Amino acid sequence: MARVLLPLAEGFEEIEAVSLIDIMRRGGIDVVVAYLDADFSGELVTGANGITIQAQLPISSIIADDFDMIVLPGGWGGTNHLAQDTRVQSLLRDFQAKDKFVGAICAAPFALHKAGVLSQNYTCYPSVEEQIGGSGYTDKHEVVQDGKVLTSRGPGTAICFGLAIVRLLVGQESYEMVRGGTLSEFCKPL
Amino acid sequence: MARVLLPLAEGFEEIEAVSLIDIMRRGGIDVVVAYLDADFSGELVTGANGITIQAQLPISSIIADDFDMIVLPGGWGGTNHLAQDTRVQSLLRDFQAKDKFVGAICAAPFALHKAGVLSQNYTCYPSVEEQIGGSGYTDKHEVVQDGKVLTSRGPGTAICFGLAIVRLLVGQESYEMVRGGTLSEFCKPL
Repeated sequence: MARVLLPLAEGFEEIEAVSLIDIMRRGGIDVVVAYLDADFSGELVTGANGITIQAQLPISSIIADDFDMIVLPGGWGGTNHLAQDTRVQSLLRDFQAKDKFVGAICAAPFALHKAGVLSQNYTCYPSVEEQIGGSGYTDKHEVVQDGKVLTSRGPGTAICFGLAIVRLLVGQESYEMVRGGTLSEFCKPL
Repeated sequence: MARVLLPLAEGFEEIEAVSLIDIMRRGGIDVVVAYLDADFSGELVTGANGITIQAQLPISSIIADDFDMIVLPGGWGGTNHLAQDTRVQSLLRDFQAKDKFVGAICAAPFALHKAGVLSQNYTCYPSVEEQIGGSGYTDKHEVVQDGKVLTSRGPGTAICFGLAIVRLLVGQESYEMVRGGTLSEFCKPL
């Protein structure tokens, strides 16, 4: 069974985090939601729109070897925490060094950039590319894969991003089942 | 400021609940998330895919007069609770009796049907219409409005449902701002 780590930091974008967790679990992925040790409230983490979600484990208890991928939800507040947290930044480099998948949506590709793990070709929330730089930004696709790095754009593409991860880590059959079962035919294949 | 009540019951569909809360709050609506008094875990409510969300108030503390609309997220487990809970069923009838808006997505139009408040024309998750009956079901629209009753289809239409509610209760300008800001151009206007 594929395993994915999703770190949740105060100010995360709720549609993005929940769509990713929900779609990946429907697709048969074991998703572990981690909270940052620095978070005042511990396992209860509040998003940008005031929705509080219970995380499962502290990020300090996580090692890259136990996972196939790490994926970061967006939201500016959450992204800034993920970009500043030394544990998360170190884990991102570990995942890449061990040839595992790395993903981020919306503002969070900035946290990948900060860790030095973002690929040449990527997408993100419009205008965030100005803080990332490089010539590989595109706004033409819901999801961009470049090597083992996957990126996506915002709340409206979060289900499609989850589906792309299901297809990558589980397979086409599961992808099609979840895409149909969630009425997400608007998501174009990667 | 428009106010919307969203009751959360064990087994709710997480993308639907969170997309509705997130989009409505972005649109300027005061959204109150209530838990059922019968829920064992109190204000922490767990959805169909294992995501636990913190609700704000017990349903017994709610009166219809304080709100403009009640909207129910889907998921079969959650829907069955909402259809059996006497407080929720009674509130649904109160909202309709007081000429307020009533909404439901996915399986939850069944809970409206159970309370006797569902309109002739509606949509829902495919096959749920078999348990509701009537001749007014359609699968041709993401969101259906018939009088003061709004219904929608599933996780993939939840953002669009939230946007339709924003347009109805707040206005076109807010609707367009949230639709653009969340990159949800795939949602067709009602």
